[in-house]
Amino acid sequence: MSKRKRIIVIGGSAAGPKAAAKARRIDNDAEVIILQKEADLSMASCGYPYYVGGYFNDRNMLLCTPAGVVRSPMFYLNAKDIDARVNTEVTDIDRKKHTISFKNLASGETGSLNYDKLIIATGAVPRMPPVPGTDLEGITTLQSMKDADFLRKIRDEGKIKKAVVIGGGLIGIETCEALQLAGIEITVIELLPQLLTFLDMEMAKLVENHVRSKGANVITENGIAAFLGEEGKLTAVKLQNGIELPCKLAVLAIGVQPNVKLAKEAGLKIGELGGVDVNEFMQTSDPDIYAVGDCVETLNRITGKKVHAPYGDLANLQGRVAGENAASQNCVTFPGTIQTGICKVFDYAAGSTGLSETTAKRLEYPDIITVINASPDKPGFMEGKLLVTKLIADKKTGQVLGAQCIGPGNVSKQIAQWAMAIQGKLTVEDLVNADLPYAPPFSLAIDHFIATVHIMQNKMKGRMKGISCKEVRDKLLAGEKPFLIDTRGPEEFEEMRLGIGETLIPLGALRKRMKELPEDKNKEIICFCKISLRGYEAALALEGNGWEDVKVMEGGIMAWPYPREK
Amino acid sequence: MSKRKRIIVIGGSAAGPKAAAKARRIDNDAEVIILQKEADLSMASCGYPYYVGGYFNDRNMLLCTPAGVVRSPMFYLNAKDIDARVNTEVTDIDRKKHTISFKNLASGETGSLNYDKLIIATGAVPRMPPVPGTDLEGITTLQSMKDADFLRKIRDEGKIKKAVVIGGGLIGIETCEALQLAGIEITVIELLPQLLTFLDMEMAKLVENHVRSKGANVITENGIAAFLGEEGKLTAVKLQNGIELPCKLAVLAIGVQPNVKLAKEAGLKIGELGGVDVNEFMQTSDPDIYAVGDCVETLNRITGKKVHAPYGDLANLQGRVAGENAASQNCVTFPGTIQTGICKVFDYAAGSTGLSETTAKRLEYPDIITVINASPDKPGFMEGKLLVTKLIADKKTGQVLGAQCIGPGNVSKQIAQWAMAIQGKLTVEDLVNADLPYAPPFSLAIDHFIATVHIMQNKMKGRMKGISCKEVRDKLLAGEKPFLIDTRGPEEFEEMRLGIGETLIPLGALRKRMKELPEDKNKEIICFCKISLRGYEAALALEGNGWEDVKVMEGGIMAWPYPREK
Repeated sequence: MSKRKRIIVIGGSAAGPKAAAKARRIDNDAEVIILQKEADLSMASCGYPYYVGGYFNDRNMLLCTPAGVVRSPMFYLNAKDIDARVNTEVTDIDRKKHTISFKNLASGETGSLNYDKLIIATGAVPRMPPVPGTDLEGITTLQSMKDADFLRKIRDEGKIKKAVVIGGGLIGIETCEALQLAGIEITVIELLPQLLTFLDMEMAKLVENHVRSKGANVITENGIAAFLGEEGKLTAVKLQNGIELPCKLAVLAIGVQPNVKLAKEAGLKIGELGGVDVNEFMQTSDPDIYAVGDCVETLNRITGKKVHAPYGDLANLQGRVAGENAASQNCVTFPGTIQTGICKVFDYAAGSTGLSETTAKRLEYPDIITVINASPDKPGFMEGKLLVTKLIADKKTGQVLGAQCIGPGNVSKQIAQWAMAIQGKLTVEDLVNADLPYAPPFSLAIDHFIATVHIMQNKMKGRMKGISCKEVRDKLLAGEKPFLIDTRGPEEFEEMRLGIGETLIPLGALRKRMKELPEDKNKEIICFCKISLRGYEAALALEGNGWEDVKVMEGGIMAWPYPREK
Repeated sequence: MSKRKRIIVIGGSAAGPKAAAKARRIDNDAEVIILQKEADLSMASCGYPYYVGGYFNDRNMLLCTPAGVVRSPMFYLNAKDIDARVNTEVTDIDRKKHTISFKNLASGETGSLNYDKLIIATGAVPRMPPVPGTDLEGITTLQSMKDADFLRKIRDEGKIKKAVVIGGGLIGIETCEALQLAGIEITVIELLPQLLTFLDMEMAKLVENHVRSKGANVITENGIAAFLGEEGKLTAVKLQNGIELPCKLAVLAIGVQPNVKLAKEAGLKIGELGGVDVNEFMQTSDPDIYAVGDCVETLNRITGKKVHAPYGDLANLQGRVAGENAASQNCVTFPGTIQTGICKVFDYAAGSTGLSETTAKRLEYPDIITVINASPDKPGFMEGKLLVTKLIADKKTGQVLGAQCIGPGNVSKQIAQWAMAIQGKLTVEDLVNADLPYAPPFSLAIDHFIATVHIMQNKMKGRMKGISCKEVRDKLLAGEKPFLIDTRGPEEFEEMRLGIGETLIPLGALRKRMKELPEDKNKEIICFCKISLRGYEAALALEGNGWEDVKVMEGGIMAWPYPREK
């Protein structure tokens, strides 16, 4: 009888335990060992911001199964027959001997284990800015249970009144919300001109407006120059433009990079983006070693290019694939990602799937078309909430390349729909008559998703000449004077208006007031309303009456990310 | 100069106005006329139950645009240049002369109009049971604004204490909730053995349990024999089994049938299901006449067979297609439906898309496979709520044929995902690594949707032998004695248990307690837990230890629709 096959998994957060569990399920005879450097196992790390923000108080909820059992080494042994060792750092991989060396961080004990198959799930490490003072007390990341404990304690103590979050990405924004909910005055610093770079600028600006409306300060296009301190403790953050922001707490969230130290030292191939290079089987350049989760590069299914996509859901899916392949023959593959992501931002959610316009242009997609749609997720009588969606498609084929959605409405459902549409390689024409679940408690009769597709179709067929809010503003800044029509009612106009030189002509009065319009039928006219549905009807009426250059400002006032008169 | 093209639309509810608006947008020169028998236009009829139930109080919200303008004839004229005439019944279509005759129900005035293109959107009428007493005061449907007004008045007066809803379909269940919320004691009567026939039996039973838990009575497999009354007023409903239910209000909701009177009299082809027969352009047997909405039969995209699918969203999509085709050449098509639907049922939602197992079997699909999955929609620490999904796929190709989802969780998102997967013709293998939006406020790291696919894949690969709750119960009723293992913890067992002869062996203790299991390695063993994830792990452990016939009860206790011990 042959000896038992031994599968060793390095890393016990998300991808590692999933790989181990799958390997065990596939091969009941194998010996499956998880070596985890940290004290905890299988932490719901995406949940840290909500623990810090006080959405729940029981720390164990981040560590336990749906049935409430903490995923301890004992749990892994009894429930899954997996030998999970915590506080155990792997210090070396000897590929020739098929062994790994480890050190117990609690006892100091060292040792080595041989493996038949190895799965590397070493995750990612936070990027640190190359500035002085990063070792001051009061500076943290939100990357580990320890970080979460530290920030939660600050929340519970209630002593710190001001904090700075460095980085306006997903984790930065989630941390901003968490600390703001804890009653701390927050400033978010972002080096780039916008938050949440998975969104295009005009979408990100709408999110930024919402963050500001919640009382958080946002500073963009400004980086950190130094952390200032006294007696080893943080006292202020100094920005590149010289401004000093006094604070006792700073959270670094400028992104993560694959933790490939072990893999690199073992001579495994590292990709151009700094992650472990793996094939479709999640197999590294050594056929007996797999790698999964935040430490690898993965394929973007749309572009065919490698990306670093450190998402918890992908980590689990990759773990499942590697676990099966390590336990049996290479028999299942991971197709890659379309980089679907979402985050909660106070009362908004912001999500994206596929390519943004920015990414598509950077990758030199030759012929893309975009549209922005604003409308509620449900009827007004069911308290529908706003959604703003930007759709990116291939102009020739109509294939959906990407979509972004933000707002207080059910963003998650919209993004899920777009993600499935992209994975089904569906086109605008395919989606125009999509059959989605409709009832007033859940959607409009023409769901926001379908309305977005309809507008895109109208635009592709040349029936609607759309112009984005950004393009309108750029025109105005450049001194152009298009004739601007706000087609809403006078009461709406009194309550809220852009004040960019528009003329108020309610849609219902338009046909009677045509004489107020430019005599020059070639004059550029731009119509809009709250969401530009009435704006679109107005544009058609004007075109029907001979005006040649009539545009609709996409998404209307709801998509206008710039300051308005009232 | 040629005379203006005239497009007449008969019907002003959903499909009609959409067709008219689209026709107007396509052809700015055409004359577009809507003839509407009722007093209102463009009513949000799917919203009636929520008005009756008191979700909102302003009746006009059912009739107005998102900007709050009531869609009156004046609105249609000014905003859309459409001549919408209410209280105007079309009495005859003369196809040879290309005219219609109409009668103004308010003034009695009659007249006729010629048309170039006609669009019939006459909707559907409620089915009435062939029993005595249907004309008694206190009997209504919930099909019109008038019905909604009638029921809302009953709610506001608060005098009626008991009511009977006849029909356990979508409208029946929505009406049940509305009246229950109004403080009226409700009994729902359904002729078939289950409510909501778009669901398979075991899913419908879970919904029925929820309806009962809210205090409503449900009587299945029993029809109505007569309405009993005194002095012209309803006093009781008599059932086919002789039982009399005293009540002053009865709502009839036994379905609708296409309103094809005009179309039939005009000699247009009527389909086998009683709806107007239309081609992919929504064109009837007369090329100058289109028909849309609840009065037509439409194609089921999966089966290729005609169905009657009276859904508000399809009505709008069909209207858009017919409007464009009537205004220009036949240039756009409606591909049909996959019969996606959803309804709110108190704290639950119940949705379905594609084929149910029942339908697939009735249509003699040769080789289908199903699976049931129960799990929360979000992590416990974000207050995740239960979802139960049944997936139906083609066993050979793995193509998704249908899915049903119920529960308090985000059902609408799940159904939308399945609907897109079906429209993208995706298979189980395609979906195993689906990239969906993950963050704890919105989903689990492995979304319920993906978990369902994983279980299906395990089942298709023979790794999990699933058995449905129904099959387990049928076995027990037939006197079979499988060895049943509940793999949860003792506390969970104390709190809630099936009591069907199961042995409690917590998963964590299983490997030590194997000696308690049947000696006969061929004995049938069925494992389950709350949602059967631990049940699955237990089954794998038992198979790994030599037992040959180990099954997992799909969905576990959460999917068990029958009475339990506690």
